Amino acid sequence: MGKKIVVALGGNAILTDDPSAAAQMAALRKTAEFLVSFVENGDQLVIAHGNGPQVGNLLLQQEAGSTPKNPAMPLDTAVAMTQGSIGYWLENALDEALANHGINKDVATIVTQVEVDANDHAFEEPTKPVGPFYTKEEMEQKQSEHPDFKYVEDAGRGYRRVVPSPKPTGVKEYKVVNAMLDAGVIPVACGGGGVPVVKDGNRLVGREAVIDKDSASSKLAELIDADMLIILTAVDNVYVHFNKPDQKKLEHVTVADLKPYIESGEFAKGSMLPKVQAAINFVENKPNGKAVITSLENVDKFLSEGAGTIITKD
Amino acid sequence: MGKKIVVALGGNAILTDDPSAAAQMAALRKTAEFLVSFVENGDQLVIAHGNGPQVGNLLLQQEAGSTPKNPAMPLDTAVAMTQGSIGYWLENALDEALANHGINKDVATIVTQVEVDANDHAFEEPTKPVGPFYTKEEMEQKQSEHPDFKYVEDAGRGYRRVVPSPKPTGVKEYKVVNAMLDAGVIPVACGGGGVPVVKDGNRLVGREAVIDKDSASSKLAELIDADMLIILTAVDNVYVHFNKPDQKKLEHVTVADLKPYIESGEFAKGSMLPKVQAAINFVENKPNGKAVITSLENVDKFLSEGAGTIITKD
Repeated sequence: MGKKIVVALGGNAILTDDPSAAAQMAALRKTAEFLVSFVENGDQLVIAHGNGPQVGNLLLQQEAGSTPKNPAMPLDTAVAMTQGSIGYWLENALDEALANHGINKDVATIVTQVEVDANDHAFEEPTKPVGPFYTKEEMEQKQSEHPDFKYVEDAGRGYRRVVPSPKPTGVKEYKVVNAMLDAGVIPVACGGGGVPVVKDGNRLVGREAVIDKDSASSKLAELIDADMLIILTAVDNVYVHFNKPDQKKLEHVTVADLKPYIESGEFAKGSMLPKVQAAINFVENKPNGKAVITSLENVDKFLSEGAGTIITKD
Repeated sequence: MGKKIVVALGGNAILTDDPSAAAQMAALRKTAEFLVSFVENGDQLVIAHGNGPQVGNLLLQQEAGSTPKNPAMPLDTAVAMTQGSIGYWLENALDEALANHGINKDVATIVTQVEVDANDHAFEEPTKPVGPFYTKEEMEQKQSEHPDFKYVEDAGRGYRRVVPSPKPTGVKEYKVVNAMLDAGVIPVACGGGGVPVVKDGNRLVGREAVIDKDSASSKLAELIDADMLIILTAVDNVYVHFNKPDQKKLEHVTVADLKPYIESGEFAKGSMLPKVQAAINFVENKPNGKAVITSLENVDKFLSEGAGTIITKD
């Protein structure tokens, strides 16, 4: 039995410079080729992915076409829509790559609800920009239509809505993900960080929020008792003192190694920092687990010689 | 072990007169209450559903917001998006209904690719209207942008695009559906009739088409070796000589009983006819199977006393 691995795909695995469906499917076909290496290695794979540009584009279109008879969908539903579209592209690409390698294995995308705490302080302090840019007048009009929304000025580019980015506390469908792995299926789950829901009695209520996909992947990896969380991004390794004379590539590091770097601001907010934090969360909850931050292009070297930034608890 | 049942939900199970996400979720909470009866009866449930109004609305919004930097998605991707949104609403509603009934069971939506034959004659003769109405001038503009699209005049309301509605020949994820059933999960699959794909070597290529959801449900029921296909619609029974003095409610009927009614045009095209045909296809492929056409509201009477139109091979 191979290792159980959650792979979180970064935006560059899906979207290059052409936002058409055909171009995104083509990018995912390249991505799928890299992912097949894990399957050939005998590992059990769960694939998560982001949806930032896709949900942004969808919100733009929804808003452009919104009428009383055809209202724009709320953000939780829009996230679910991108789980459908990107999930389809990704499972379609993997189906083909597996067949090209003579591997008989099923792939299936699961629409995933990720639980967050209604009292998460992120709900008081929305920070994540989503959707279109507005002029001041447009923003004021929008604000009057949605008094509960928050808009902020984005230096020189106009105003933009910001939404909360709460921490994941659970993944509703994690047992299904495990059942699929047991059946030999490759699940695609937690797309776009998952549909954000809060518990209200027996009901899970969708919220106007987005969840960081690396954070959701880390929670899923913890819940399914994965051996490894692999966060794929644009670089082969995490660096400290980046672009400075004492630049240092991180290879094998522990949580204790990373914490001072976090405190001294070595990792960019909204970029490398959430990845490092997701990695730390996973290994702290799963002391024998490994978290890896590397690039898609480096997957084969990771598998053959352990290249990449590998994070363990101790 | 209970019976393995594929339930195909009609449009009225999702959309009432209010197209907001909140209203559709509320409609699905009512629907979920009816579906729980099957689970309490010990049956293994797979749920399929339509997406006509939802994909129509999405296409409208996509087109309104389409720009070179943010192009409208093709129809296969749009179908996948509605699998995401409706799947989320439906699994969320079922999660709550199951919890309200003290049932510990997982629900998960699977993005589903439904295979069709590239040589299906439907591709030469597109008939299914989708998306916005256009004036003659708008239609001519669209036609020049998409020379391969077909537009037809819709009496008095303008021009509209028509797309092929090919017959399903396979369901790519049917083995995953079976694995989920074996694990005690309730899968939501074949939403909107599935994403239409044609085989090209190892690649499944998405097509600009829509698949009838009852037909796709029938194919899925056949592939997973279901005991029963239940098509839920607005009426408790199928009728012949409808609204005439000799109106007759169909209760237990065989394929041989139905064929003359089909030939004499008893069942409305695009309405009851495809349901009756999907029912016949299922029982012809599964001679011990049963197909049922009834309403959601009649589910309890169907379970307790067999009310509804029940179709068997002989």
